[in-house]
Amino acid sequence: MDLDSLRINGARLQHTLEEMAKIGATPAGGVQRLACSDEDKRARDLLVSWLREIDCEVTIDTMGNIFGRYAGTDPSLPPVMSGSHVDSQPKGGRFDGILGVMGPLEVLRTLHENGVRPKRSVVLVDWTNEEGSRFAPAMVASGVWAGKLDLQWAYDRTDIHGKKQGDELERIGYKGSAPCEAFPVHAYYELHIEQGPMLEAKGMIIGAPKGVLCLHWYDIHLEGTANQVGPTPMEGRNDALVAAAEMIIKVDQLPAAMGGNMVATVGEIHNYPNSRNIIPDGVHFTIDIRSWDDDHALAAFDKLRPQMLEIAQRHGTPIRIEETWKVVKAPFDQDLFERVYATGVKLGYPTMKWVSGAGHDASYMNQVMPSAMIFVPSIGGRSHVEVEETRWEDCEAGANVLLHCLLENANEI
Amino acid sequence: MDLDSLRINGARLQHTLEEMAKIGATPAGGVQRLACSDEDKRARDLLVSWLREIDCEVTIDTMGNIFGRYAGTDPSLPPVMSGSHVDSQPKGGRFDGILGVMGPLEVLRTLHENGVRPKRSVVLVDWTNEEGSRFAPAMVASGVWAGKLDLQWAYDRTDIHGKKQGDELERIGYKGSAPCEAFPVHAYYELHIEQGPMLEAKGMIIGAPKGVLCLHWYDIHLEGTANQVGPTPMEGRNDALVAAAEMIIKVDQLPAAMGGNMVATVGEIHNYPNSRNIIPDGVHFTIDIRSWDDDHALAAFDKLRPQMLEIAQRHGTPIRIEETWKVVKAPFDQDLFERVYATGVKLGYPTMKWVSGAGHDASYMNQVMPSAMIFVPSIGGRSHVEVEETRWEDCEAGANVLLHCLLENANEI
Repeated sequence: MDLDSLRINGARLQHTLEEMAKIGATPAGGVQRLACSDEDKRARDLLVSWLREIDCEVTIDTMGNIFGRYAGTDPSLPPVMSGSHVDSQPKGGRFDGILGVMGPLEVLRTLHENGVRPKRSVVLVDWTNEEGSRFAPAMVASGVWAGKLDLQWAYDRTDIHGKKQGDELERIGYKGSAPCEAFPVHAYYELHIEQGPMLEAKGMIIGAPKGVLCLHWYDIHLEGTANQVGPTPMEGRNDALVAAAEMIIKVDQLPAAMGGNMVATVGEIHNYPNSRNIIPDGVHFTIDIRSWDDDHALAAFDKLRPQMLEIAQRHGTPIRIEETWKVVKAPFDQDLFERVYATGVKLGYPTMKWVSGAGHDASYMNQVMPSAMIFVPSIGGRSHVEVEETRWEDCEAGANVLLHCLLENANEI
Repeated sequence: MDLDSLRINGARLQHTLEEMAKIGATPAGGVQRLACSDEDKRARDLLVSWLREIDCEVTIDTMGNIFGRYAGTDPSLPPVMSGSHVDSQPKGGRFDGILGVMGPLEVLRTLHENGVRPKRSVVLVDWTNEEGSRFAPAMVASGVWAGKLDLQWAYDRTDIHGKKQGDELERIGYKGSAPCEAFPVHAYYELHIEQGPMLEAKGMIIGAPKGVLCLHWYDIHLEGTANQVGPTPMEGRNDALVAAAEMIIKVDQLPAAMGGNMVATVGEIHNYPNSRNIIPDGVHFTIDIRSWDDDHALAAFDKLRPQMLEIAQRHGTPIRIEETWKVVKAPFDQDLFERVYATGVKLGYPTMKWVSGAGHDASYMNQVMPSAMIFVPSIGGRSHVEVEETRWEDCEAGANVLLHCLLENANEI
């Protein structure tokens, strides 16, 4: 048959996503499928049954990752692979992660019903606990698979009730027996919603991210002097929250001051004793700086640091700065990235090159095999919320791009 | 005997305070005696035993307030009264409240050992739960006694474990049978640490507060738009925490902008979802404004409100402003206030007129009887913390002023 004219079934993809969204559905239209929860198990069971319907060989590894292999004609060649995650944020959306699992499922169904057997096998993967909401950190199972994180350490991660990830994986019946370790893969693609507003803003349907931004996390600790607010004059106060407020504004102003493609955010703050009539004597807040350019991000913090020291000095609130986490910029495989872009254009979708601001399982894959991602628009740029939304025709477009990227790689030697 | 030369026993007062500080002592040198706790009960038992040693008639009312009556020569005259509270903040200090109970105890001991019987009886009082830390609100039992709060409502206040104040009062054996209602009192004095730095800063030992500052509490709610920080550019963000930070700085600048004797504080902030990689979509923070002049405080908020609206507008973070609580300025009885000042001067202590920035049980007493307070210095202005400290000789000075104020009122007709 003419592979170039092959397209996935958009209506079936929509139906599949809608069926999956019933598992853990929230009243406000989102889903809650925390890693290794009962909802996660039901979603996995459904995925496995769907994979078996199209004669895929299903393997579960010791970290609970689910692989569905659609056999190619030459089993000696390393397969191509695509996947993402079925787990969600608490009160998350219906597209984050799951589109990257149902998308390749739809690709496999399309190949199956058309009797298309590429040279290489095509493997669908569901990575356990991408979100890290219940058991930190995020992307843990793809990290173990890629050899970047330790399996036992991952088992020992606990949720807020003290339950271990390994025990919960076993409880839901998904602690498999296959070793959780990388096997040779010819090319890896991850279809995902953008989780930002740029594709929509620019009227694009397909985004080809050239890589994942670098990420720098800092934890700032300020120490003030607690006192009853009424009898303590303004002069001579050491108010840790006022000092923090000045710093938060400096962080917000940093990208504009630095120029370039950069974001800087304070997402988390803890104030002590946090009583309305006591002057705050302790504040802990976080800073997240991301940029396409590592040096640019470091230069930004070099600009910010003396500003924070000056503020702390002026308020008499000693400061401690912790550099918590650092991830260097990760360009995707140049050929696969160009293939995503070219495929989007070839199929007639408005397509742009872009970057990924967030980490994904593809970040770990990218370290051990040629990898790239395919983005589709998030309406209003919203994600990690129940109102997260992507148009069905954009889901279809993304899956068609995935189909043809996978096919090309699967048929090359 | 020559009453003018009568002085309390400073060493005994120190010993008494030290004995009391053993009950609920914390490793860092403070005390934790939460209202209606086992520690509160032990402190009350000790107080009652000490009152009985000097032939005081002890009465417990239905709100657990303890009255110790040292009989005067004319039982037909309304008594004079002095007291404060034995309960403490969690990890509070060794002087807040308890000095105002051990001070009058030392006064009664001095009268008793010298055989001094004034015309009017002298009543010592321990008010239940002044702090409001375990069961909100603060000053609840003096409020019920003054007829400003409802007894059953006070019983129904619960702690974080859901335990009711009334039940806990009964559990520790201090739900008495005397009605909790105001009886005629000729004059009420409360001895208390300043809880601010002014007496120390000015080299004073006795402060005569002319009254309690007015107090205005506001709750501010901001609504932002949650999004993943990485993929969301700075332009078009609705970051509720950045908007809050700008407002916190405006609040801090308000007293300087308004001039006069004013303090303005943000003590409490709650940020949502408070995750380091999600743009904050909700912030709730409090504002506390105090001034000697009610109009001045209201004018300050009138200045602040449009600034906050402009900030909310600019950030696209809808704002809701709640006026949570308001207490008008409360001048103490002019004669008693002048008597405190004159007595401090007469006894040779550096004495100043001042104001009280914080509310005390005397605030409720002041509404139903002639009332005034006596302040002694807080070292470094520290209070509501374990390092709270007042010099022993200053405690002695305060108790001597209390002795002579009470004596003068107790001997007048």
